Amino acid sequence: MASDYRLKEALPKLTKRIVSTYDTLGTINHLGHCPLPRYEQIISSIADLKEILYPGYRRRERLHMGNVTYYVGDLIDGLHDKLTTQFARALRHEDRVNDGVDCGADQVDYEAKGQAMAIDFLDRIPDLREMLALDVRAAFDGDPACQNIDEVIFCYPGLEAVTVFRLAHELLEIGVPFIPRMMTEWAHKQTGIDIHPGAQIGRQFFIDHGTGVVIGATCEIGERVKLYQGVTLGALSFPTDRDGKLVRTTKRHPTIENGVVIYANATVLGGQTVVGKNSVIGSSVWLTKSVPANSTVTMEKPSLRIRAESAVPEVTDYQI
Amino acid sequence: MASDYRLKEALPKLTKRIVSTYDTLGTINHLGHCPLPRYEQIISSIADLKEILYPGYRRRERLHMGNVTYYVGDLIDGLHDKLTTQFARALRHEDRVNDGVDCGADQVDYEAKGQAMAIDFLDRIPDLREMLALDVRAAFDGDPACQNIDEVIFCYPGLEAVTVFRLAHELLEIGVPFIPRMMTEWAHKQTGIDIHPGAQIGRQFFIDHGTGVVIGATCEIGERVKLYQGVTLGALSFPTDRDGKLVRTTKRHPTIENGVVIYANATVLGGQTVVGKNSVIGSSVWLTKSVPANSTVTMEKPSLRIRAESAVPEVTDYQI
Amino acid sequence: MASDYRLKEALPKLTKRIVSTYDTLGTINHLGHCPLPRYEQIISSIADLKEILYPGYRRRERLHMGNVTYYVGDLIDGLHDKLTTQFARALRHEDRVNDGVDCGADQVDYEAKGQAMAIDFLDRIPDLREMLALDVRAAFDGDPACQNIDEVIFCYPGLEAVTVFRLAHELLEIGVPFIPRMMTEWAHKQTGIDIHPGAQIGRQFFIDHGTGVVIGATCEIGERVKLYQGVTLGALSFPTDRDGKLVRTTKRHPTIENGVVIYANATVLGGQTVVGKNSVIGSSVWLTKSVPANSTVTMEKPSLRIRAESAVPEVTDYQI
Repeated sequence: MASDYRLKEALPKLTKRIVSTYDTLGTINHLGHCPLPRYEQIISSIADLKEILYPGYRRRERLHMGNVTYYVGDLIDGLHDKLTTQFARALRHEDRVNDGVDCGADQVDYEAKGQAMAIDFLDRIPDLREMLALDVRAAFDGDPACQNIDEVIFCYPGLEAVTVFRLAHELLEIGVPFIPRMMTEWAHKQTGIDIHPGAQIGRQFFIDHGTGVVIGATCEIGERVKLYQGVTLGALSFPTDRDGKLVRTTKRHPTIENGVVIYANATVLGGQTVVGKNSVIGSSVWLTKSVPANSTVTMEKPSLRIRAESAVPEVTDYQI
Repeated sequence: MASDYRLKEALPKLTKRIVSTYDTLGTINHLGHCPLPRYEQIISSIADLKEILYPGYRRRERLHMGNVTYYVGDLIDGLHDKLTTQFARALRHEDRVNDGVDCGADQVDYEAKGQAMAIDFLDRIPDLREMLALDVRAAFDGDPACQNIDEVIFCYPGLEAVTVFRLAHELLEIGVPFIPRMMTEWAHKQTGIDIHPGAQIGRQFFIDHGTGVVIGATCEIGERVKLYQGVTLGALSFPTDRDGKLVRTTKRHPTIENGVVIYANATVLGGQTVVGKNSVIGSSVWLTKSVPANSTVTMEKPSLRIRAESAVPEVTDYQI
Repeated sequence: MASDYRLKEALPKLTKRIVSTYDTLGTINHLGHCPLPRYEQIISSIADLKEILYPGYRRRERLHMGNVTYYVGDLIDGLHDKLTTQFARALRHEDRVNDGVDCGADQVDYEAKGQAMAIDFLDRIPDLREMLALDVRAAFDGDPACQNIDEVIFCYPGLEAVTVFRLAHELLEIGVPFIPRMMTEWAHKQTGIDIHPGAQIGRQFFIDHGTGVVIGATCEIGERVKLYQGVTLGALSFPTDRDGKLVRTTKRHPTIENGVVIYANATVLGGQTVVGKNSVIGSSVWLTKSVPANSTVTMEKPSLRIRAESAVPEVTDYQI
């Protein structure tokens, strides 16, 4: 590099200026001996969990009933250790944020608490498999373009998002802080589908295509519900307390009953809004009030302005 | 870790419970000696193919006419082997799913069939380059924010999605099962653009921004078509047969003729819907019937409720 | 592999056919001794910059005031070298594209120019931290589902996109070609949020969920603005010059004043469109004209067709 070394002399002073902002702008740095949950460990745990939930599809080939116990047992053992550590970190961090507890002065055995949560979580895997087998089946039965069950597991972003959601939702129920949101946001990044781990979602749930779907924290979704890309199940407005601070606990998101289908880019808003069972919400509908069971909601024949213009000369082909 | 070893004693029993679900819930695990196509190999093949299609942009620098033949020859040779193996796996798997053929009892030389398909596919690369050069040019000519052709190749998610689509579409035509969908779903994950490999798409195709675009399996798209983010070319409804099963072959998605432009978040639905040539479909339009050539379709001046509220006191700056 | 070696003999001829298209279709290959900016280096620079902007969250744990200076100093030193090289490549490439300057015949010391830009850019990090601390705070204050500040930094795609945008915008101001767009398109891929580096965006900016957001190159956005998923701030139409070529410099995208909130999937178009301060634009609204300060714009009660159908028999549960 032919660059000027005198310029590079500016770097120590710049470093000092930057470091001084870690003091003045302390909200967006995390310094100290109390480490946060580690993002890479959370993500690699999701990959391990998917190997257990759907064995034989991705990382390891030629599994059979004669060797799969070793493979899964080893994964479970590793997950036990990884999750114990990460859950302990999340629990310690939460106490620190809420009560200002200092890192050296733990009153709680976070490792033991984390371990109990890890065991509780891993124990739910057999039931989760049953739940996910139904989701997989709902995807196959809900999409005429789908050729076979394996295509769902290999290719469907909806299944990816729902799998991670169901894992994260269990963690939230067990009381693991922080990590469920890290997981669902990872799935959001992979799929464009943003499901808050707090949502309640029944069996046989299918999201097709999925990009842009948002499902809020206080949604309640029944069984056999099908959503398409761009569907928002969101909040109408946010109540604030007398200090003008947001109230973070009210039901703000809609209830979707059994058997409902919501087509692309429809928006359903509000904590009081209930879409009655077996209803169909058409594409691009914007709905902020309840509809009874068996309703079909579509946009009125859209008042489009269709203007036939005088034919323009055909554009000729490009020269490359 | 200060965790309790007695708790960890639960793991072997848990492993057993999980493994037993591989028997009872056999639809979502793939055990046995008949491996599926390997996701990582498919994705790395896409990367290799892009090195051949657009050499000099990403992995390898300082290519020139004196060394590029070695580089490309080596890539082609490696792709031949990789694709042969993966195509053979996909073909064997398809027969197994459809006809219950057992893995050890192959009646077909899948490797030979896979190789013939790999050669056929690689043979189409020169024509694909011609096609893609036109797509790149269409992107540059269609976006006033674009500074030069290299920006299209480096930065445009629309080109990424269309490149992978065109590769996957050729594979589908050749008769490779399963892998085309793995490829386009990988592109979907990268770009938010979901193009089914079955779609028919003409030359000089450009998708700008692209997040949320969905193009269904039976779409027919002419030449010089331009789409923006969030456009859905989808199905109106799914016909079912007399057993209530979805019919998976009908034309369910629209036809878009030459020179059409469809703006952001517009939705065009239905297998009978034809958008006539050189028409313009405005942003957020929802269209379920055909329009003649040279039409401009916009939403009627939207009936918005515009309410001027009493001025609220200016929010003061935050304290960080 | 049981494949046929005679088939493989076709590969040299195929390689030759492909290489010959590098001559005939030269627009989409980059051959020669003048390397382009390297994508991997740009992306790894973003990761380094995030370690400096938000230390302690991701790559390196147990940072404290006693060791952070070494860590940050080393990152700054490495970034200086990486960015100098990449900026020099971008500058050389730009001259080559615009003026046809040949690679060997440099009239300019691009390394020196690149280094000056790198130093100028790194020098802005302290101010960027201040800006981003306000963005982080705006996210926490704007989302009732958010539990604490760390969640914003770990999980919010909106912050990811805005962080990369603010970095890229500084580079664009400094005059670095090409690389700003590579950066924001990387963020687009990660988050589904597409912000052109040319946009002007004020302090305390928050995008929630974010998938599908598009913010055009000539947007002007004030302070304390909040956007939701799927919002497009786009162009109405593109003026062309007398040769029919796009004019690439006009203001084509709207102006959003201080304190405006724009809900999910709303579309605001046109360079003359001004959304007055503290206005609220409702979900799915489509707006192409200005509204005064303190306006609330919602869709008229949507004319929905709600049809209560005769109850269909409840679908029974699947057999897995």
